[in-house]
Amino acid sequence: MATWMARCGINARIVDKRSTKIFAGQADGLQLRSLEILDSFGFADRALKEANHMLENPGPDGRLRRSDRLPDVLPGLSRFTEIVLHQGRVERFFLDHIKKHSKNAINVERATLPESMSFTEDRLDDHSQDNFPITLKLRHLSEEEATPAQAQGSTTSDGLFRSNLTEDDTDELIRKGQSKEGNVEIVNAKYVVGCDGAHSWTRKQLGFQLEGEPTDYIWGVLDVIPITDFPDIRVRCAVHSASAGSLMVIPRENKLVRLYIQLTEVKPDASGRADRSKITPEIIIKAAQKIIAPYKLTYEYCDWWTAYQIGQRVGRSFDYRNRVFLAGDAVHTHSPKAGQGMNVSMQDAYNLGWKLALVVKGLAKPQILQTYQSERRRVAQDLINFDHKFSRLFSGRPRKDIMDETGVSMAEFKQTFVKGNLFATGLSVDYGASMLVAKEGDAAEQGDGTELYMGRAKDFARPDLATNIKLGMRYPSFKVLNQTDARSWHFQTRLKSDGRFRLIVLAGNVLAPAQKSKLEAFCELLSSSAFLKSHLHHNIAVLTLHSAKRTETELLRDFPDVLHPFDEKTGWDYDSVFVDDESYHEGHGEAYKGYGVDRETGCVVVTRPDQYIGFVGSVDEKGFEGVEEYFKGVFV
Amino acid sequence: MATWMARCGINARIVDKRSTKIFAGQADGLQLRSLEILDSFGFADRALKEANHMLENPGPDGRLRRSDRLPDVLPGLSRFTEIVLHQGRVERFFLDHIKKHSKNAINVERATLPESMSFTEDRLDDHSQDNFPITLKLRHLSEEEATPAQAQGSTTSDGLFRSNLTEDDTDELIRKGQSKEGNVEIVNAKYVVGCDGAHSWTRKQLGFQLEGEPTDYIWGVLDVIPITDFPDIRVRCAVHSASAGSLMVIPRENKLVRLYIQLTEVKPDASGRADRSKITPEIIIKAAQKIIAPYKLTYEYCDWWTAYQIGQRVGRSFDYRNRVFLAGDAVHTHSPKAGQGMNVSMQDAYNLGWKLALVVKGLAKPQILQTYQSERRRVAQDLINFDHKFSRLFSGRPRKDIMDETGVSMAEFKQTFVKGNLFATGLSVDYGASMLVAKEGDAAEQGDGTELYMGRAKDFARPDLATNIKLGMRYPSFKVLNQTDARSWHFQTRLKSDGRFRLIVLAGNVLAPAQKSKLEAFCELLSSSAFLKSHLHHNIAVLTLHSAKRTETELLRDFPDVLHPFDEKTGWDYDSVFVDDESYHEGHGEAYKGYGVDRETGCVVVTRPDQYIGFVGSVDEKGFEGVEEYFKGVFV
Repeated sequence: MATWMARCGINARIVDKRSTKIFAGQADGLQLRSLEILDSFGFADRALKEANHMLENPGPDGRLRRSDRLPDVLPGLSRFTEIVLHQGRVERFFLDHIKKHSKNAINVERATLPESMSFTEDRLDDHSQDNFPITLKLRHLSEEEATPAQAQGSTTSDGLFRSNLTEDDTDELIRKGQSKEGNVEIVNAKYVVGCDGAHSWTRKQLGFQLEGEPTDYIWGVLDVIPITDFPDIRVRCAVHSASAGSLMVIPRENKLVRLYIQLTEVKPDASGRADRSKITPEIIIKAAQKIIAPYKLTYEYCDWWTAYQIGQRVGRSFDYRNRVFLAGDAVHTHSPKAGQGMNVSMQDAYNLGWKLALVVKGLAKPQILQTYQSERRRVAQDLINFDHKFSRLFSGRPRKDIMDETGVSMAEFKQTFVKGNLFATGLSVDYGASMLVAKEGDAAEQGDGTELYMGRAKDFARPDLATNIKLGMRYPSFKVLNQTDARSWHFQTRLKSDGRFRLIVLAGNVLAPAQKSKLEAFCELLSSSAFLKSHLHHNIAVLTLHSAKRTETELLRDFPDVLHPFDEKTGWDYDSVFVDDESYHEGHGEAYKGYGVDRETGCVVVTRPDQYIGFVGSVDEKGFEGVEEYFKGVFV
Repeated sequence: MATWMARCGINARIVDKRSTKIFAGQADGLQLRSLEILDSFGFADRALKEANHMLENPGPDGRLRRSDRLPDVLPGLSRFTEIVLHQGRVERFFLDHIKKHSKNAINVERATLPESMSFTEDRLDDHSQDNFPITLKLRHLSEEEATPAQAQGSTTSDGLFRSNLTEDDTDELIRKGQSKEGNVEIVNAKYVVGCDGAHSWTRKQLGFQLEGEPTDYIWGVLDVIPITDFPDIRVRCAVHSASAGSLMVIPRENKLVRLYIQLTEVKPDASGRADRSKITPEIIIKAAQKIIAPYKLTYEYCDWWTAYQIGQRVGRSFDYRNRVFLAGDAVHTHSPKAGQGMNVSMQDAYNLGWKLALVVKGLAKPQILQTYQSERRRVAQDLINFDHKFSRLFSGRPRKDIMDETGVSMAEFKQTFVKGNLFATGLSVDYGASMLVAKEGDAAEQGDGTELYMGRAKDFARPDLATNIKLGMRYPSFKVLNQTDARSWHFQTRLKSDGRFRLIVLAGNVLAPAQKSKLEAFCELLSSSAFLKSHLHHNIAVLTLHSAKRTETELLRDFPDVLHPFDEKTGWDYDSVFVDDESYHEGHGEAYKGYGVDRETGCVVVTRPDQYIGFVGSVDEKGFEGVEEYFKGVFV
């Protein structure tokens, strides 16, 4: 969220009740879509360099032999594969990026927590620039006050204070802070986003509830350098013992391995919660040793450990009147084993951030904020359903034989695992119809009753022109060449997260006279549109991908100026026209084929600032009208 | 040089008479081998991310039409292609890396210059640890003293003070400094390396000369954001005008383009030198406009400019009694257009650094230092010959017709250009026989009369076992998989520049019983060698690449312990055994095919700390003896 604010030049503050960032443990998996997002900001390379890369999963088995080997993700889904790196490093990359790009010196104000939030109710719907209808009281804590206690007698850092086995300490922190004077501040805000976790203070102020119940399954987590003869310790795998429970192996960076270990001997008490004081690293490793026998498993070095109780809960409302928003664990909690927590939460914020930025700048209509709930709540619901099924299969006892009806079928486990993997990549997300996605359907189908303004662009949409550029899904990537210097680029890398929409002109065969005329006519309409004039190149970047032979085409001769605008200080733009052609060193990207677009006639596409596809139309007058209507539906 | 010292934990000091690093201009091309070297230290990614990538060269032409298009480098030579990025950034990457890795806080001591150097002559041959036979007097300058004057009236930074059109100011700086008190320091050193440029103070102290003469060709250099309708301004290309001279286009990062422009109207005076005061950016761009007509060329922004006079000179001696060494422009100067200056100079230091480090540590015999001259002087000589030919072709007038004998043939130009490109990549370097390269031949063939100790390993060498692993050349790279986790790696990335030799066991088909026995016998000899015992894994890393099916082999079952040693704190080593097999996402590397090695029987290879190939032998007793003899020839 703060990264978007930094990149879009929006004044924002982040407060965190804790006194430090994460240094060990917590989330660790970066899924494919998250890597694409990090890359769109420009720092996926830092994660890729440090992380462990996940390539293979031997399948599960009841008697500790490999039942199968599967690729961790299906080939061809993305330019990335799944990686694992602890959350502290991921936070570091974000913090460095925010620092570098923020004109307003956005930084995380730590040991600071909100104490109250109030509204000027009758001004909430007025999104004009000088209206700040939210009043927050912030309290600044001392370092000591903000540092949570660790488990007694432990020398390894543990994450129990963030676990759902621990009660929230926000109220206590506020009480402690109130005993002192002079450490309170009043902030007037336009918008508030609560990314404040399962115990969300923001959610409680709004009186919103999460719906769902905990299960009886208790799991421990160890980040260790394992000493073992288990052959698949460097491969993500699931081990199902006959009766001692299950464990999951997640190989990590720097020789670390994360082990998720079922604690069958720890049970919830009458209140439904397990007693966390009974859980120690010794208990967890002993449970692991029973599960993994006859293989040996010990460790000398433990980096971090925690424990949690599985449960799935989701919020009914993700926002309060488009002024206060909830993201991440504040509106959906689940078990960590599918590596979704950090990923889906970042993706919530990634969905909302640019919308807020465009509204704050006065560029976009405030109605686009409604799409946060319509788009993200369905993702959360899907996640909860997946996790519910996956957790039950994972924590259940393996079926002994076909008559054993209370046991878990390993075939079903594997099927869920494979299907879940596609979901877990984040690439199957498909946002519903709205003014931001010009497709058939309406908000009612999105299952949460949101009334959305739809716009007129869908009357001009031609999704049939691009069978693999799917309205509502993220723009896929293939390798293309820069027209001028022949450099090979993954096309997605040209869709930077800079707050701009993209108009992507798949110009087809620009050397065919008929197609050249259509392209010229389309560009003429584009450059003469009074509505688009102020937005083109500033709020809507224009990218071209043609399919003629690169060496037979010339930038200045064959492509209208609007596709590569001239600047008095820096000359022609050489970075906007690309071609689907053979490269010198990296083969042929076959992008038109990949996109499912006709090489002769092409199409035009609008992508949103988050790379999701908003409009697909034809390279002609009708396509132009669709583009114009799309932006009339979005911009003020 | 300092990077090696930092990585090998050697105490070293670097002094630079200038008060700052480079911020603009100077060298800008990073050739393939240089990128491999940066990658071996672990920071090529920083350069790759920021740089412009060179993919294509339209060929030259007399009448300003494209005569041809060529790939900038031949496909398949390296995992990298040529990139362009200004020297200041490359220096930054080195400085950051040195800071991160240096235990002894090595940093560049700026505004500091040596004033005198003397020797304890009778102790020069004694390389024992406590002998410091060199005495240097260092003088610390003030900021003002160390800052060179810029061209009068110019607002753009220029590089004339580093150009060969400018007299050296070292003596003047020393004189200025001497007028003050208390800013002198005495340093006792084991070794001195003069990387101090064409005017090398170090070389002058030794009384060594560079041999060669300047030509009459004067060239200007502009780093500008060009405003032009010339279609190939973002492609490396050569423009030969009929009578106004030539220019070369080097597209750069951040919209910059470097233009090398022949100044036919500036002539050397009677002394053989051109008057630099006559050269301005205005004169240079006017010359460019004449050459590139009828296309237009102007600019609003100039980042840097300079001018130089072409000449080729090379030193006869690269060292003084293995105590004082000269590297880079201190022993070879030439024109900058082939992008060799920074690259060959870095490669000089890269050749010498690890040798010095191993001798300082008392691990290697001091005789290995002799190979610096035997290996690098031939490279310098080849460079000078190449540059001589290339410059003449480049600066000459194009031939009008077949009868025009004083003109330059464009066919010959293109031929030289193509041949030169392979040389310029740095990948054709082939070091001669020595104790470090167990091949036939002797030092006399290396053309400089160096007497070298040769070692006995070559009696056991079997270069025929690996047709593309060539003794004396750098170890080529193909994609392989980690045996344990299936991750795909370019094998060269496993040959880090950490000061260690590598024993690479191409183990062949380890599932064939005969080959498995041979491998086990080889490993048994290896682990029981009294000589190798203390070096294995510490000074000699062991890497294995086998060719059996990955999923049918097990690390702990099929590979002797010496190939993946056990550590009490961290368990088994999972990062040393690799396989040539199909990957999940990146195809089949076909490494055995690429290396020209039999998939059944394999071979063993020793690479030096700089990845050059020292020994190739068989996976058996004879191969083991060769490995042992190789290291007996190197280690004390």
